[in-house]
Amino acid sequence: MRLQQVCGRSPAALTPFVDLARKTVNISQLKPADITIITVSDDAVVEVSEAIPFSGELVVHTSGSIAMEALSSKNRRGVFYPAQSFSIADAVDFQNVPICLEYEHRTDKDILGGLALALSENIHILKSEQRKELHLAAVFANNFTNYCYTVAKEICDAQRIPFSLLHPLMLKTVAKAVAHEPKEMQTGPARRGDAAVIQNQLEALEKDHHKELYKTMTSLIKEHYGKEL
Amino acid sequence: MRLQQVCGRSPAALTPFVDLARKTVNISQLKPADITIITVSDDAVVEVSEAIPFSGELVVHTSGSIAMEALSSKNRRGVFYPAQSFSIADAVDFQNVPICLEYEHRTDKDILGGLALALSENIHILKSEQRKELHLAAVFANNFTNYCYTVAKEICDAQRIPFSLLHPLMLKTVAKAVAHEPKEMQTGPARRGDAAVIQNQLEALEKDHHKELYKTMTSLIKEHYGKEL
Repeated sequence: MRLQQVCGRSPAALTPFVDLARKTVNISQLKPADITIITVSDDAVVEVSEAIPFSGELVVHTSGSIAMEALSSKNRRGVFYPAQSFSIADAVDFQNVPICLEYEHRTDKDILGGLALALSENIHILKSEQRKELHLAAVFANNFTNYCYTVAKEICDAQRIPFSLLHPLMLKTVAKAVAHEPKEMQTGPARRGDAAVIQNQLEALEKDHHKELYKTMTSLIKEHYGKEL
Repeated sequence: MRLQQVCGRSPAALTPFVDLARKTVNISQLKPADITIITVSDDAVVEVSEAIPFSGELVVHTSGSIAMEALSSKNRRGVFYPAQSFSIADAVDFQNVPICLEYEHRTDKDILGGLALALSENIHILKSEQRKELHLAAVFANNFTNYCYTVAKEICDAQRIPFSLLHPLMLKTVAKAVAHEPKEMQTGPARRGDAAVIQNQLEALEKDHHKELYKTMTSLIKEHYGKEL
């Protein structure tokens, strides 16, 4: 398995691939390969798939939220979606990243699966609709939890409390949610329906956006567990 | 350092302490000790501290949200607050749990610190006001993130997607928030201000409480990063 060719608009972004593959900034120079992978921002996937100059080959995108069928039908379509968030600041151990595959033609299952297994030990076949829902669940499990950490840090900063005081709790919370049902692990004043503490905490919050998040979360958690109180 | 005596209303709850200490269900039989620790629900702390039959001794509570001064002034007051969430289902490695101490009399610093250091390597001196804010920040970093996991799992369950597909992402998200500034680690459609994806995702959510959480979070994240877009 070998990287044949890399195509991108920016010559600078292609620099890391020097000696690894042929490079081009012109998509019309793209040559057929066993798998052609489109990794561009979501709103460019359709356009790029249509600009590919060949047909009848296996072409996949890597987006969580775009249906396989959005790709141009002139090629054999597929999806190669790693369910992980990537940032330059932080290396990823790819072996544990779940890779979600989809393919239009049964005969492409092996070649797509072979590439996935070369990178990860955690491979899943998901339909477009499932992948879209997984991507949506990830917004809650990743983007929204991270915003909660941001607010927690703002509260600590305002009182000159080291945010590191919360690190063991943060790590423990996710470890419990992974090892058990998160629903069973819920604690806190909203879970207990402790109106006095909730009132005190709402008053203690100084910023409007903290109050708003607190109110929404507390009312949803109370509603969720309300029948049990 | 030795556990002298355990007092609790329920004889059954005292069973684990057999052979470790004298036990009593009657608080009037409590004897003075180097440290007396009140570990009861928040709304019982004041009452229990007043029911203690001796005076002039060091008595501490373990609550994040209650001021030290709420304890009866007949004893020397203090706080011993472990910034961690405990549940029977999950053992805690106490060595890494941050323990936040407060004391009324400077002379009690050493005895309180000695107990804390016997359990943990992570000791902090916090005033009541700081501890209260830390406890409030913990509601965001623990209770609210756990509820986000609950919603993420509900979305996966509805599509028969294994929740374990999100585990690596969840663990990575918290690892990044601990290693870097969570504010710098924010990703997702709200962070990017991607109106099309936001609209699609809102429509894809079937349950009202999912929609409500999505709307609040998205609007707060957009507001937070809006100036940068």
